[in-house]
Amino acid sequence: MDERLKKQLDFALEIDKEKNIFRQTHLSGHGRNENDAEHAWHMAIMAYLLREYSNEVIDISRVMLMCLIHDIVEIDAGDTYAYDAENLKTQKAREDAAKERIFSLLPADQKAELTALFDEFEAYETAESKFAHAMDNLQPLMLNNSNGGEDWRNHGVTAKQVHGRQDKTRLGSEQLFQVVDSIINDHVAKGNIKEE
Amino acid sequence: MDERLKKQLDFALEIDKEKNIFRQTHLSGHGRNENDAEHAWHMAIMAYLLREYSNEVIDISRVMLMCLIHDIVEIDAGDTYAYDAENLKTQKAREDAAKERIFSLLPADQKAELTALFDEFEAYETAESKFAHAMDNLQPLMLNNSNGGEDWRNHGVTAKQVHGRQDKTRLGSEQLFQVVDSIINDHVAKGNIKEE
Repeated sequence: MDERLKKQLDFALEIDKEKNIFRQTHLSGHGRNENDAEHAWHMAIMAYLLREYSNEVIDISRVMLMCLIHDIVEIDAGDTYAYDAENLKTQKAREDAAKERIFSLLPADQKAELTALFDEFEAYETAESKFAHAMDNLQPLMLNNSNGGEDWRNHGVTAKQVHGRQDKTRLGSEQLFQVVDSIINDHVAKGNIKEE
Repeated sequence: MDERLKKQLDFALEIDKEKNIFRQTHLSGHGRNENDAEHAWHMAIMAYLLREYSNEVIDISRVMLMCLIHDIVEIDAGDTYAYDAENLKTQKAREDAAKERIFSLLPADQKAELTALFDEFEAYETAESKFAHAMDNLQPLMLNNSNGGEDWRNHGVTAKQVHGRQDKTRLGSEQLFQVVDSIINDHVAKGNIKEE
């Protein structure tokens, strides 16, 4: 087997480990915790089906690929809960090291391409990254909503914390943000999200 | 919320159930069984990274979307093991009913689009569907190979059965088929796949 194909297959096998990285979100039907690979799969399909709600014109295949790979670094760095202030401080350093190790398994051109796409997602500046982030926010909110907000309740999450993250959904989609905002308000009213 | 968006979000929530459909394949590192959502995520990334090996020119975003949705019908129909002759007989009828129910949650235009893409995958005729099938074959073979062929051994799978499915990989990619063929021969030699 030639060296290039061997590297591509080594990377393909390595990312299998993403299926073992579990998130705080639970599957609908009060199921088990969700893992990163499932979350990425779900986001990519949602991005495709909801692309008409993007504020800006987007290249949907770039968005989908961004969704699919955006959590690969968590194979080494672990999942950092969106409302865990302590671990959020070290998140960037842990994820940078992981990015270097994991994407280096690929041939140089593909390492450069996937690293750039990951960095673009993180930078939150392009239309594609804003819409991918909207999915990264909407997908777990949808699951949590379907489970009566139990993930927020169990973590004692406040409206300020949820808004801090979810308000950025409007950068990707004003229309989807209206849905998000209404779900948040509903759970604040029900006491599943703390008022302050 | 308007009716169209509501339907799209209902579908998005419904497909969360695909994460509960477990396959015969085990994760690398002798892990647990893999589920359909993880398998689809893995296939879509592999399709993107390995697209240069397609025999024919392909629209890679169509291939990726095809990979992502190809097992959604198993939410109702369940996973049918590739070497389970009895269940394979009823597979089509079960999957057709599931396809109708699940894709009908979407707005009519998106129902038609995803149904057509699913049918295209099943028909195994277009360049895109042949390459998507190559991923559907290569991905579990790669995991099983990484685990010393235990899934084949535990099911008493024969070389004839493996070749019956895996030889079609060459329809999508001659070059990837060479890898597949060499892995199969290795496991036949080691006795993990039965000779007849």
